[in-house]
Amino acid sequence: MDDNFKIGIIGGKGKMGEFFTRFFQKKGYEVLISDKNTKLDNRSLLKETKVIILSVPMSVFPQVVEEIANLTTEKHWVLDVCSLKLEPYKVMRSLLKKPEVLATHPLFGPYEPSLKGKTIAYFPIRGKNLLKWFSQVMCEEGLKLVKIPPKKHDQIMGLVQVLNHFWLILLGNLIKQSGFTLEEIVSLATPSFLKQLEILQRLAYQDEKLYGKIQLDNPYGKRFRNLFYKQCQKLIKVLNSDQAQTLFETNFKEVKALAKELENLLKPLSLN
Amino acid sequence: MDDNFKIGIIGGKGKMGEFFTRFFQKKGYEVLISDKNTKLDNRSLLKETKVIILSVPMSVFPQVVEEIANLTTEKHWVLDVCSLKLEPYKVMRSLLKKPEVLATHPLFGPYEPSLKGKTIAYFPIRGKNLLKWFSQVMCEEGLKLVKIPPKKHDQIMGLVQVLNHFWLILLGNLIKQSGFTLEEIVSLATPSFLKQLEILQRLAYQDEKLYGKIQLDNPYGKRFRNLFYKQCQKLIKVLNSDQAQTLFETNFKEVKALAKELENLLKPLSLN
Repeated sequence: MDDNFKIGIIGGKGKMGEFFTRFFQKKGYEVLISDKNTKLDNRSLLKETKVIILSVPMSVFPQVVEEIANLTTEKHWVLDVCSLKLEPYKVMRSLLKKPEVLATHPLFGPYEPSLKGKTIAYFPIRGKNLLKWFSQVMCEEGLKLVKIPPKKHDQIMGLVQVLNHFWLILLGNLIKQSGFTLEEIVSLATPSFLKQLEILQRLAYQDEKLYGKIQLDNPYGKRFRNLFYKQCQKLIKVLNSDQAQTLFETNFKEVKALAKELENLLKPLSLN
Repeated sequence: MDDNFKIGIIGGKGKMGEFFTRFFQKKGYEVLISDKNTKLDNRSLLKETKVIILSVPMSVFPQVVEEIANLTTEKHWVLDVCSLKLEPYKVMRSLLKKPEVLATHPLFGPYEPSLKGKTIAYFPIRGKNLLKWFSQVMCEEGLKLVKIPPKKHDQIMGLVQVLNHFWLILLGNLIKQSGFTLEEIVSLATPSFLKQLEILQRLAYQDEKLYGKIQLDNPYGKRFRNLFYKQCQKLIKVLNSDQAQTLFETNFKEVKALAKELENLLKPLSLN
């Protein structure tokens, strides 16, 4: 590997920054980081590295891109890993005129024990070599890359992240209010609810600040929460009506049809 | 095995009835069934069998128990498999004065490819031999038996079944309304949301009539739906407030603490 092919992670002390440091070191790359209170500042980092990974909170993202904009050259490859894509895409496209640039969103947290089959959403901004290299590295580790326009990405995350987390918080609140002990609930969980509890259990490893940002910063989050709330209201009305059983069955059959479609897309169902 | 130790399943043509027929036949038992349009009626079934499994819908349950009440003797062992337990418990306790009687609820559907680790909730009503035999048979197949008072059982099912199914229907409705294709959603699913889709996928194998009954018959279902709705309203208000991030973080930390407690009860977390 080219001696000058070093990787620089801005925000290297954050959780995803640390993850990518370990990730690339394991693959044999030399990784330098900058963050608050690191020896290197961003300017020095850019002098010494070819690939720049922007792993900073959304709140400081535009400011960091502005800071590095005039320090990046044609030789640099810059990619971000923000949970949203439209704003970072716009900022990078308008400010980073020289380097190759790639917008990415790793659809997993820093604590996954295996990366095999995990997904990174991406959208190219400038150049082909960065994408080619990035794809190859991720492919070697069994990761899938999915190309998606930034706005569409953010909309889908309104469902996949915002609404899913919203439900998990509600479920957690409800379990706490139920008056049942966790032992009672776990001991009487159906296979379906057990999987639900396993999803909830994952939150033990997540960061409240990041989850707050994901919940609040997505411009489509509010729409999904409101839509969900209205659906909730509507279904409750249906279930309180005279024709509850019939109407429920009709709705259930629609969802069952969706569940059958899912069979073609997900791995063959192990009902366990 | 005693030649007269035959198993009779009332409602043997239903899905759970068929499941238990296969289950006990595999274990070497002779199984007879009665149902609408079977050769045997309940009276003849009771004459020829020792263990009677009541696998009929809740709506006809009291009527069936009334019918067989005077036909059961001290030699009979009777157990039900209803999704709710308080009403069947009351009916069986008051009408079945001679046989041994056991109330059970298998916490899984008829299509699970493996029964290992699955749970059957139970509460004894009369006699010890039926329970002893039933425990042993189920234990041999790797099933767990969990004793739970009937009312408490029904309350917990208000969360484990009613609310969980309620959420899945809402999720299905929302996916349909999102305007995204399933391909788009699956390709951008996080590990957490992928598990959520796997739970949804299970509905492909479920029966709308039974799910309607489970949703509507549980006397605590309405309470959980309403509680959920109010929590939903409350969390939306929090997320629209000036202090959204701080308040969300506080709530998230509470749920995170719950998630950590779950770690001690569930199998060690594989984050995949």
